[in-house]
Amino acid sequence: MTENDPLKPIDVATWNSGAVRLIDQRKLPAELVHLDCSSVDELWNAIKTLAVRGAPAIGVAAAYGAAMSIWASEDETPGLLTEMNAACDHLATSRPTAVNLFWALDRMKRVGAQSSGLSPADFKARILAEAEAIREEDLELSRRMGRAGAELICDGATVLTHCNAGALATGGLGTALAPVYFAHAAGKRVSVFADETRPLLQGARLTAWELKQCGVPVTVITDNMAAWAMKRGKVDLVITGADRIAANGDAANKIGTYGVALAAREHGIPFYVAAPVSTFDLSIPTGEGIPIEEREVGEVLAPRGQQWAPADVAAWNPAFDVTPGELIAALITDAGVLEPPYTESIAEAFGDTPGNG
Amino acid sequence: MTENDPLKPIDVATWNSGAVRLIDQRKLPAELVHLDCSSVDELWNAIKTLAVRGAPAIGVAAAYGAAMSIWASEDETPGLLTEMNAACDHLATSRPTAVNLFWALDRMKRVGAQSSGLSPADFKARILAEAEAIREEDLELSRRMGRAGAELICDGATVLTHCNAGALATGGLGTALAPVYFAHAAGKRVSVFADETRPLLQGARLTAWELKQCGVPVTVITDNMAAWAMKRGKVDLVITGADRIAANGDAANKIGTYGVALAAREHGIPFYVAAPVSTFDLSIPTGEGIPIEEREVGEVLAPRGQQWAPADVAAWNPAFDVTPGELIAALITDAGVLEPPYTESIAEAFGDTPGNG
Repeated sequence: MTENDPLKPIDVATWNSGAVRLIDQRKLPAELVHLDCSSVDELWNAIKTLAVRGAPAIGVAAAYGAAMSIWASEDETPGLLTEMNAACDHLATSRPTAVNLFWALDRMKRVGAQSSGLSPADFKARILAEAEAIREEDLELSRRMGRAGAELICDGATVLTHCNAGALATGGLGTALAPVYFAHAAGKRVSVFADETRPLLQGARLTAWELKQCGVPVTVITDNMAAWAMKRGKVDLVITGADRIAANGDAANKIGTYGVALAAREHGIPFYVAAPVSTFDLSIPTGEGIPIEEREVGEVLAPRGQQWAPADVAAWNPAFDVTPGELIAALITDAGVLEPPYTESIAEAFGDTPGNG
Repeated sequence: MTENDPLKPIDVATWNSGAVRLIDQRKLPAELVHLDCSSVDELWNAIKTLAVRGAPAIGVAAAYGAAMSIWASEDETPGLLTEMNAACDHLATSRPTAVNLFWALDRMKRVGAQSSGLSPADFKARILAEAEAIREEDLELSRRMGRAGAELICDGATVLTHCNAGALATGGLGTALAPVYFAHAAGKRVSVFADETRPLLQGARLTAWELKQCGVPVTVITDNMAAWAMKRGKVDLVITGADRIAANGDAANKIGTYGVALAAREHGIPFYVAAPVSTFDLSIPTGEGIPIEEREVGEVLAPRGQQWAPADVAAWNPAFDVTPGELIAALITDAGVLEPPYTESIAEAFGDTPGNG
């Protein structure tokens, strides 16, 4: 992803000779550092502490993790399968909300079970190929969302986004930002307002960083400025990603998304959610059923190690909220742009996909 | 303000033998440091850089500043008056939005003009007495708002507040928090959700600090969690302060207040604004006419000196927004609780007060 080629994927989570190579997003934007995880615990920790984050990126990293977990093993195939399944089960405990994590790991286990007749070498190769396929498919999904969503962005438009649902959150191109990149690559003048996204600042750190990489003008604001920016006519549309979408279109996404959606409705600004198939969880009828991770209060009280609040004060730190489908103008997906009523349009588009078993 | 006496004022801005003594709020909550300003430039800088902040507190500090500006002078009275007027005009340029600043300085100039026949010593004493009166009156206004607003807080209620409109923002008791202190002192169980209030974190740093001083349970959240806290039933009412209120009830307050008000309406949660007479500016018919200070973008991009965003990225930093009167359930004032329609109730309560010349 460069000024010359805004559609070239970033190497967010890739395979590096038996290790899972990640861009260490905890270090951005100050420095671009790669992290090679060569044990399951290391990768579990990297996911938990957000070295890699964003639902699709976590799915890709976990899939490579399944391959990494057996790469150096000298076991026979049945042993490899057992080891890999245990690794998958462990990795699934790293984050509770991102359905892509479970989806990718289930897929790896299924392919493992189907491949139990192969030699150890062929088994490993098959598993790695599946992980590579998950990344490739994710990139293709981003391209489809990008093309579909770019149609919604007029020349000269300003898009507000929350958190980072860009290249760094995915296999390397983005969900919410893919339409921005495709509009930009097509020569439209598009600019972005990036909510900084407390507590972990994915907007200020990551969205601003990756938009700069390919020359899209970006303005960072604190989260509480979004409603006022809309009131002052500075925002034409909102696009966010999602971590899980229920069968009725209710979308869990980074904490703060719900408030942005309320403000967008107040100002008649369309609020879009961009998400690939693996984000839809048709087993959950409404947003009420989506589990919401609560994280350590230190992220609120002492961001990046700097104590802001009195040390012994209480805090609350839900990592996600749920935006009701009623507030969402359309869902930008790899199966096209879905419109309300979502129960029908989602079922029609995704009712029989592998992500919804 | 202590656990034993929650209604004892904090010495936010006081007189200290010719200097204006401030609690240096930039240093809270890490340490409680007093700052003695003995020159107008020092005080101007303290106001500008938010060592003292909150509209009523700025008014008190500026009034003492008028006295400080002439305290050591050996001029005759006409010279003192000229010096003091120049100091007032200079102090008025330190912050553009807080009407209390202009109100207090105009009052000092008016008293100066009325006292031009006094001896230099009597003139100085008269000026200092006026500044002391402004602080005393502010405390009395807080007590009235506290008593009136406490009626709106049920036993067991949780109040959400934004920014700091407490003891530290005023002569020493608070506007939005005065009702909380009075409810608490009356034995009601009341707890507070404090928005951290980016960019300058007055909620995390100051509101949390002062509520802890007198034992009111406080939970800090990031600003973008407020809507979700409401959705999850954690908030019973909202009380914020205001920096300026137009004749129709539109209220300028810390950036982010508007989004909180939108979320409160969505959830049927009453949203109150607490403000004394000096905050009402009847010369401004609606919120459209309230000037909004824009501050340095470094506050957004590199809070407290820590670079979060890419260094050379753009940002926007409006310090205030305007909440339309339609979103405000009632105005808690020293003249009682005013209800819509505000154009009528405000005119009736404040139409002939000195703040609105």
